[in-house]
Amino acid sequence: MKPLGPIPAGYRAIDGELAIAGRKVSDLVAEAGETPLFVHSGDLIAQRFSDLRAAMPDRLKINYAIKANSFAPVLKLVSTLADGLDIASGGELDMVRSADFDLSRVSFAGPGKRDAELHAAIAAGVTLNLESENEARRALAIAEGLGVTPRLAIRVNPDFELKGSGMKMGGGAKPFGVDAARVPALAREIVEAGCDWRGLHIFTGSQALSADAVIEMQGKVLDCAHRLAGEAGMAIPKLNMGGGFGIPYFAGDEPLDIGSVGAALADRFAALPDTLQDAEMFIELGRYLVGEAGVYLTRILDRKDSYGETYLVTDGGLHHQLAASGNFGTVVRRNYPVAIATRFDTEPQEEANVVGCLCTPLDRLADKAHLPKADVGDLVAVFCAGAYGASASPSAFLGQGQAREVLI
Amino acid sequence: MKPLGPIPAGYRAIDGELAIAGRKVSDLVAEAGETPLFVHSGDLIAQRFSDLRAAMPDRLKINYAIKANSFAPVLKLVSTLADGLDIASGGELDMVRSADFDLSRVSFAGPGKRDAELHAAIAAGVTLNLESENEARRALAIAEGLGVTPRLAIRVNPDFELKGSGMKMGGGAKPFGVDAARVPALAREIVEAGCDWRGLHIFTGSQALSADAVIEMQGKVLDCAHRLAGEAGMAIPKLNMGGGFGIPYFAGDEPLDIGSVGAALADRFAALPDTLQDAEMFIELGRYLVGEAGVYLTRILDRKDSYGETYLVTDGGLHHQLAASGNFGTVVRRNYPVAIATRFDTEPQEEANVVGCLCTPLDRLADKAHLPKADVGDLVAVFCAGAYGASASPSAFLGQGQAREVLI
Repeated sequence: MKPLGPIPAGYRAIDGELAIAGRKVSDLVAEAGETPLFVHSGDLIAQRFSDLRAAMPDRLKINYAIKANSFAPVLKLVSTLADGLDIASGGELDMVRSADFDLSRVSFAGPGKRDAELHAAIAAGVTLNLESENEARRALAIAEGLGVTPRLAIRVNPDFELKGSGMKMGGGAKPFGVDAARVPALAREIVEAGCDWRGLHIFTGSQALSADAVIEMQGKVLDCAHRLAGEAGMAIPKLNMGGGFGIPYFAGDEPLDIGSVGAALADRFAALPDTLQDAEMFIELGRYLVGEAGVYLTRILDRKDSYGETYLVTDGGLHHQLAASGNFGTVVRRNYPVAIATRFDTEPQEEANVVGCLCTPLDRLADKAHLPKADVGDLVAVFCAGAYGASASPSAFLGQGQAREVLI
Repeated sequence: MKPLGPIPAGYRAIDGELAIAGRKVSDLVAEAGETPLFVHSGDLIAQRFSDLRAAMPDRLKINYAIKANSFAPVLKLVSTLADGLDIASGGELDMVRSADFDLSRVSFAGPGKRDAELHAAIAAGVTLNLESENEARRALAIAEGLGVTPRLAIRVNPDFELKGSGMKMGGGAKPFGVDAARVPALAREIVEAGCDWRGLHIFTGSQALSADAVIEMQGKVLDCAHRLAGEAGMAIPKLNMGGGFGIPYFAGDEPLDIGSVGAALADRFAALPDTLQDAEMFIELGRYLVGEAGVYLTRILDRKDSYGETYLVTDGGLHHQLAASGNFGTVVRRNYPVAIATRFDTEPQEEANVVGCLCTPLDRLADKAHLPKADVGDLVAVFCAGAYGASASPSAFLGQGQAREVLI
């Protein structure tokens, strides 16, 4: 048997079935018409924002990195809750435009920005998080051609990393940002060129569950920003401190203690150096804001036995849930939180493998899981599906196509 | 330094640039309008078919598994070269229909077939490779409702595997097919129910480069089919022997010796038992037929240094080349064959990392590769991109969208 990840808070059973925001999954599927179906709970997203704001110092602003989930209704909702949006491509710029979001509160990071993307972003008044000296010069030239003052920040490749993070994005050679040592010179160069100087973006990693690690990282980010501002001889108008707040996916994972993180950050904010005194302070979160508010529902099409093992074959799979299948950024496959949604209050009765409908052995949603005895027609829920699910999976694989998706 | 995979045969330089089917990549990109671009060579696909037919016994028919590459022009071409097509979903059924392929030469495997998919396939006269007893009964019921005789074969989960295969699909508990021991009873059941009995499908693995392993596997497939036919008391009208023919992706990989495979198969075919005497013999290949005929072209947007390492940042990435990034079905990331396409005849001069444009450290196309010195504007070629590229990658990730794709 292999353990399942922990089911996030906020889900319960009604009439024995999983309910999302008070609605039974069978009703939600009937309404949507078909499985596979992503269901996102607006209540849980709003709750997450309010819990986070309560824990963090008032001064801290919260940006949403739309790459985590850019499903239009989710984006529209989050755009009313977040202080700013972070995009990573021209395609995402179009999405935030469609959500009628104030583009002056949007910033654009990404190591490979095309000229057309720089052009569109600068024209729209979006802040560019510059990833290199070359990109800075391209941006300045494009802005000059447009006759506008570009809003420019520098993404720093810091000389430290977020410890225990799922994905390290700082500390040593990286394709992201400008090595810290070269940042002061570049800051002076772009300020002299007449840009609207928007400060620094320091992103060190993602998916950390240790409050101590996040606190240490945030402290180093503030120290780094102060040091770079001093070396550049200019204050920092805006500091994007990065993200890194993780959510529990796997057995043994504990939720991040945001109370401790917020308290430590309040202490630091109470004693900021001159260089950061007037800085707007941001964190940039994606997964943490929406990940646990989404559930992927798929129906069991077959129950079969092979050499004594039970396989529950579903109509979903890795084409919608690549990360849950263990094929995206993980070395060892571990089980996400998965449940038989139509038997949500039934105790586990057997060991079963939940697989997708694809003709590949990679397509596993749960391995040797302890589950209630399920049969054809039952619904399976994969939790933590609100971030990097639909948009980060190969939906065209084997001609399957996209899942349905609803915000309730 | 980490080695690059071997560049497949059939590519050469013209005026210092990579040429595909005699056309320079810069011309191909100019014609297509933009990078990233997949280029598939019809000549190389046709050559692969004719080499394969020359090596294999005349009796062996060659099916194409369209999941490897279902780009419409490629599918249309291959449908003129292959003896049959294998599909894995209702979506792929629509694709072969659009290619005007004779649907009686199509078979459909996949562990999670929906009722609607069974319905469409049976109505179209497609052969179903049944994955379970449940599915057999569902198919018979649907056919009865339609008033047609369904073409049914049984997919066998054999009690052996393809040694050294990249993906094992037989030998022990599996979600695919019916355990060999239960196949004779199921065969009798569906024949008694009046189906058009189409025999067996025995698929044991994929991506093998050892001729000995493939020869041994094919021998076991023939033995297994003979034994099951004997136990069921009926001849096998058609035997899909599976695929498994691999292509070299990584340094040290050697091409599969199809001459040896074909010779061994001819020997076996010369001495077939009664049960298989009249069987139509098929292999089912995907990647082997089209993988090396496709190249992914992406342009360098930035050349940057971080802590002394060089990064070539491209406008492509894992959203089109998930497998090349090492994030799909591989544990250890190794480099695919990658080249600076616009400096194709230049000797390597430096160590560089080729990364994609996505804001994630997962997005790597080549790690510490020995390459000619490249700059902004140069084109990078990722080879072996003809199979499981566009269709097996998360093209919507970070709002990037699909690559362009051409068949020349």
